[in-house]
Amino acid sequence: MRQDSHGPIGVFDSGIGGLTVLKALMARLPHERTLYLGDTARVPYGTKSSEVVTRYSLKNAEFLLERGIKLLVVACNTASAAALPALSATLPVPVLGVIEPGARAALKRTRGGGVGVIGTPGTIRSGAYQRALEAGQPHVSVKAKACPLFVPLAEEGWTTGDVPLLVAREYLAGFARDGVDTLVLGCTHYPLLKGVIAEVVGPGVSLVDSAEATAEAVAELLGARGLLAPESSTAPEHAYFVTDVPERFVEVGARFLGRPIPSAEQVDLRF
Amino acid sequence: MRQDSHGPIGVFDSGIGGLTVLKALMARLPHERTLYLGDTARVPYGTKSSEVVTRYSLKNAEFLLERGIKLLVVACNTASAAALPALSATLPVPVLGVIEPGARAALKRTRGGGVGVIGTPGTIRSGAYQRALEAGQPHVSVKAKACPLFVPLAEEGWTTGDVPLLVAREYLAGFARDGVDTLVLGCTHYPLLKGVIAEVVGPGVSLVDSAEATAEAVAELLGARGLLAPESSTAPEHAYFVTDVPERFVEVGARFLGRPIPSAEQVDLRF
Repeated sequence: MRQDSHGPIGVFDSGIGGLTVLKALMARLPHERTLYLGDTARVPYGTKSSEVVTRYSLKNAEFLLERGIKLLVVACNTASAAALPALSATLPVPVLGVIEPGARAALKRTRGGGVGVIGTPGTIRSGAYQRALEAGQPHVSVKAKACPLFVPLAEEGWTTGDVPLLVAREYLAGFARDGVDTLVLGCTHYPLLKGVIAEVVGPGVSLVDSAEATAEAVAELLGARGLLAPESSTAPEHAYFVTDVPERFVEVGARFLGRPIPSAEQVDLRF
Repeated sequence: MRQDSHGPIGVFDSGIGGLTVLKALMARLPHERTLYLGDTARVPYGTKSSEVVTRYSLKNAEFLLERGIKLLVVACNTASAAALPALSATLPVPVLGVIEPGARAALKRTRGGGVGVIGTPGTIRSGAYQRALEAGQPHVSVKAKACPLFVPLAEEGWTTGDVPLLVAREYLAGFARDGVDTLVLGCTHYPLLKGVIAEVVGPGVSLVDSAEATAEAVAELLGARGLLAPESSTAPEHAYFVTDVPERFVEVGARFLGRPIPSAEQVDLRF
């Protein structure tokens, strides 16, 4: 398949979390059309096996590919950790996940004190961040921790106050003790909890959100391949697809995207 | 289809929560064979739409039906709330959910002070408990509240300590003020949080767990239809099926079932 610079960028996630990546993409590449698919009928991916997450990821990619995307962004850490090799091997368009850009950004940021990574059980279990960090800097000290309750807290909007603070303390107390100076928010939901996370780890720890790093990587790749959309005076189209009914996605998603989502189309994908 | 008293009882749930219902069934009906299906590739159901939950429920039922079950227990409040009419209309075997037995048990228990119901967003939004309670006693005062964070807390094993206590206070403070004297635990995960729930609502509020009420309803129905398994000196077989890899189900499920799960078979259901 020959890619066309006029095609949209495809983005998928298990649900709404990937909208934080889409937001960064829209800011960095304001002339690009985008198609976003949230697999809300099967969300979350973070507690599921790598096998099942890979199966779902291939089907999500197929749906977007049929709609003529020129590049695929896997805007979900769990899916990036589980399915990136399978997606890259199968798809006729370039595929970018969020893990490598996030790891590279963390390595630029650390002052040698070690890098912490937090994510879903699936992401942490996969060891994908640990591998990406060590590939970039073999002697870096990495400490990884799964924080399964952060996703439901962010989804429910419990992002400030005693409950998230207590949960964050439970998960993150070890990072300060271990001398980590950089912490990767390895799940697209976690930027919503940045406030309490920062409070717990303290001002000496720099937080890395892979959304911006991923948007930068997409811009570089499109530029290098001559696939950047031509500049235009009219705003590009952004379309949203979901596998469950769209109401909650449209409502909660606006908090993640930082702008209203006019509508989302429910598609009946079965896999 | 003619039911045979030798057939197993089929039980399905979105994941592991329904094992609390299976546990009550095994205690009440020790001679019955059971087949349990946990749809762990799509868990949880509580945050999904009634439309999608109904689609999944019909497919789960079909799988069990093909294995010769004589009766189906929908061991998930969300699926009972969304799909019981569709299941009863479609299936050639009797179908029992957890909501009606739970509501009846609550009406027997209340001393006129009003009944509270807690459950997933899907269960509460459906109004199924509210309808079942009002059908049994038209003037009962019902107060319902969705508690979405209880499921991840129970799944993660955070059932005691400050975090679940604080979350329970946030959700349940209103029940004491409203003079509720009976509280239905309208989600199969919630019995694991009974300790903190009881602490927050106080000794004046009686907690109703629908698992035992459902087991009693199953025993009555099988008895009335002459479908009870003949007594035997050998222990009956219990088989477990899951749609994602079985490791976590076997491990965490034992906590819900109150006995070890020797093994579970992964089945590749796609819907």
